[in-house]
Amino acid sequence: MKTRAAVAWAAGKPLEVTEVEIAGPKAGEVLVEVMATGLCHTDLYTLSGADPEGLFPAILGHEGAGIVREVGTGVTSVKPGDHVIPLYTPECRQCKTCLSRRSNLCTAIRATQGKGVMPDGTSRFSCDGAQVMHYMGCSTFANFTVLPEIAVAKVREDAPFEKICYIGCGVTTGIGAVINTAKVWPGANVAVFGLGGIGLNVIQGARMVGADKIIGVDINPAREEMARKFGMTHFVNPKEIGDDKVVQAIVDLTGGGADFSFECVGNVKLMRQALECCHRGWGESIIIGVAGAGQEIATRPFQLVTGRVWKGTAFGGARGRTDVPKIVDWYMEGKIDIDSLITHVMPLSEINHGFELMERGESIRSVVVY
Amino acid sequence: MKTRAAVAWAAGKPLEVTEVEIAGPKAGEVLVEVMATGLCHTDLYTLSGADPEGLFPAILGHEGAGIVREVGTGVTSVKPGDHVIPLYTPECRQCKTCLSRRSNLCTAIRATQGKGVMPDGTSRFSCDGAQVMHYMGCSTFANFTVLPEIAVAKVREDAPFEKICYIGCGVTTGIGAVINTAKVWPGANVAVFGLGGIGLNVIQGARMVGADKIIGVDINPAREEMARKFGMTHFVNPKEIGDDKVVQAIVDLTGGGADFSFECVGNVKLMRQALECCHRGWGESIIIGVAGAGQEIATRPFQLVTGRVWKGTAFGGARGRTDVPKIVDWYMEGKIDIDSLITHVMPLSEINHGFELMERGESIRSVVVY
Repeated sequence: MKTRAAVAWAAGKPLEVTEVEIAGPKAGEVLVEVMATGLCHTDLYTLSGADPEGLFPAILGHEGAGIVREVGTGVTSVKPGDHVIPLYTPECRQCKTCLSRRSNLCTAIRATQGKGVMPDGTSRFSCDGAQVMHYMGCSTFANFTVLPEIAVAKVREDAPFEKICYIGCGVTTGIGAVINTAKVWPGANVAVFGLGGIGLNVIQGARMVGADKIIGVDINPAREEMARKFGMTHFVNPKEIGDDKVVQAIVDLTGGGADFSFECVGNVKLMRQALECCHRGWGESIIIGVAGAGQEIATRPFQLVTGRVWKGTAFGGARGRTDVPKIVDWYMEGKIDIDSLITHVMPLSEINHGFELMERGESIRSVVVY
Repeated sequence: MKTRAAVAWAAGKPLEVTEVEIAGPKAGEVLVEVMATGLCHTDLYTLSGADPEGLFPAILGHEGAGIVREVGTGVTSVKPGDHVIPLYTPECRQCKTCLSRRSNLCTAIRATQGKGVMPDGTSRFSCDGAQVMHYMGCSTFANFTVLPEIAVAKVREDAPFEKICYIGCGVTTGIGAVINTAKVWPGANVAVFGLGGIGLNVIQGARMVGADKIIGVDINPAREEMARKFGMTHFVNPKEIGDDKVVQAIVDLTGGGADFSFECVGNVKLMRQALECCHRGWGESIIIGVAGAGQEIATRPFQLVTGRVWKGTAFGGARGRTDVPKIVDWYMEGKIDIDSLITHVMPLSEINHGFELMERGESIRSVVVY
């Protein structure tokens, strides 16, 4: 069959919205009609050519929500008609990592996913006979896509696709970092570096679990208002006080340092500040942002020897099939706010405009509705 | 009164064994007759002049055991005759850190201890009228020393001083890193970088809690035999396989990476290897060694984002007055071995010889018996 899709033909070029061929699901796979997809910085990073693992041509997009339309042989956990969120971090529940219960980084299909193909080593997408690669195992910039059964989370049917698609990446990454990776406790003081979509979700996650002070750090004063709405209690602008004063400002505000800090930008200098603003003895810093290829973090080991802990998180430490449906529930119950974060909704034909908004910092989240 | 002591008059000079004046304990302080003291690399580091915080003249030594001979006003937790181990990390049980129960790094007397004086801002030691500084709040290279009450751990009276003095630093640091900081679980795979005294204590700590593979890394093949005696199951010699093969060797031996690794040398390059040999998803690396002034650790943030955790530990995360007496019990019950680690015993008059043995790598632990 054919599906409309936005194809990334090459690094640095705009996406082309066109028709591509999509093959039906093989054993253990499902065909999903994508109803909505968010545009994420990671898509932009790959499209720009900066991602050394980027493959072209490909169908990007990894933050979707949709409906199962067909299942391959052996699929038992979902059926046609089920509402699902695609998972770039699958959950097989059988690999060493899943069984360890110490990490969400399921390895069942890691090797093929990184190569842009399905677990059998082939792509389901083609255009004029030429193979088009999958992306992060999701390819939600196509109206129809194929995923392994272990890479879809079944969610409730009354949840609106154009909102819960954001749970497929940004919302879960931010809130999950708070509850799964950091395990922020009630009364903790939290510092959040970067008040974009991820940072705002960290903030609302921290508020949800009862954090005390929630300090936001951003060079853009326009971010303050929205962040306060999500639960930020104090704002630090490095451009106002000076980069070299940020750590001390947070130490002063918290009476000794943050219990938890989160780096949500991907800047290795901020990662160091985020570690060093943590409280001596127990403060934990969690890296969420993705740094440029080859960049390194550094600090004096004394920072760790005196009790600070340096961690990172991917997909918020969430096990997709288990945790994502819960976050959908939290949204439907009003525990978390997604609506305010979705600043732009557009048809697929305007997807390049969506990325322009992102590059100019004018959107928090743009969502394409098919 | 007077006491015999080994005085460090200046950086880089041998210690002088001589008589110094010692004032009696003030309020909240105790006078301890030191019966034995270990010689630790940290003493040597300060004596060498490499420690930017080193003060002279001073009485070094921080790994002792002795008997309380006199107590100042208000002291209630110990009395004359009690056997004690001095604590360079005190435990006041009242400061923010002690009350947090998340860290052992009590801050009650940190400021004055770092300046080489007692909490009232003065030294109890002098020589020909000139003030001589305390060191790490302990100064166990004097036959008599004065300590704050919160800086002594009361221990059982049947334990031999010349053995349990080592619990005042090295033993607790190594075993404590395993049980308090890392919380190594039964069946875990462990990698230990550096098979000196600290590394051997990490190894026996890991064996005590039921670790599975215990991999030792050292460039000195002579360390292998003793390490195997303490529980090491595999030996990796970077000089044999090449520095750049160490991480892969540990990943191969453990089928994916160490669950826990410990850096026991103070070498920032080894700290990076120790982190990067950890298992994706959950491996934790604990820095124990003290790096040279100004040195930095570095890695790619991807190592943390994919689930590795970077930590450090001081005094093994042990709360001195609470945990040190337990470790003395473990020694007396035969759960841990200290005797094999004490390779040299000498009178105070030979203390400089003890440091020469350490510099030449010919001792594991030298102990001075008064």
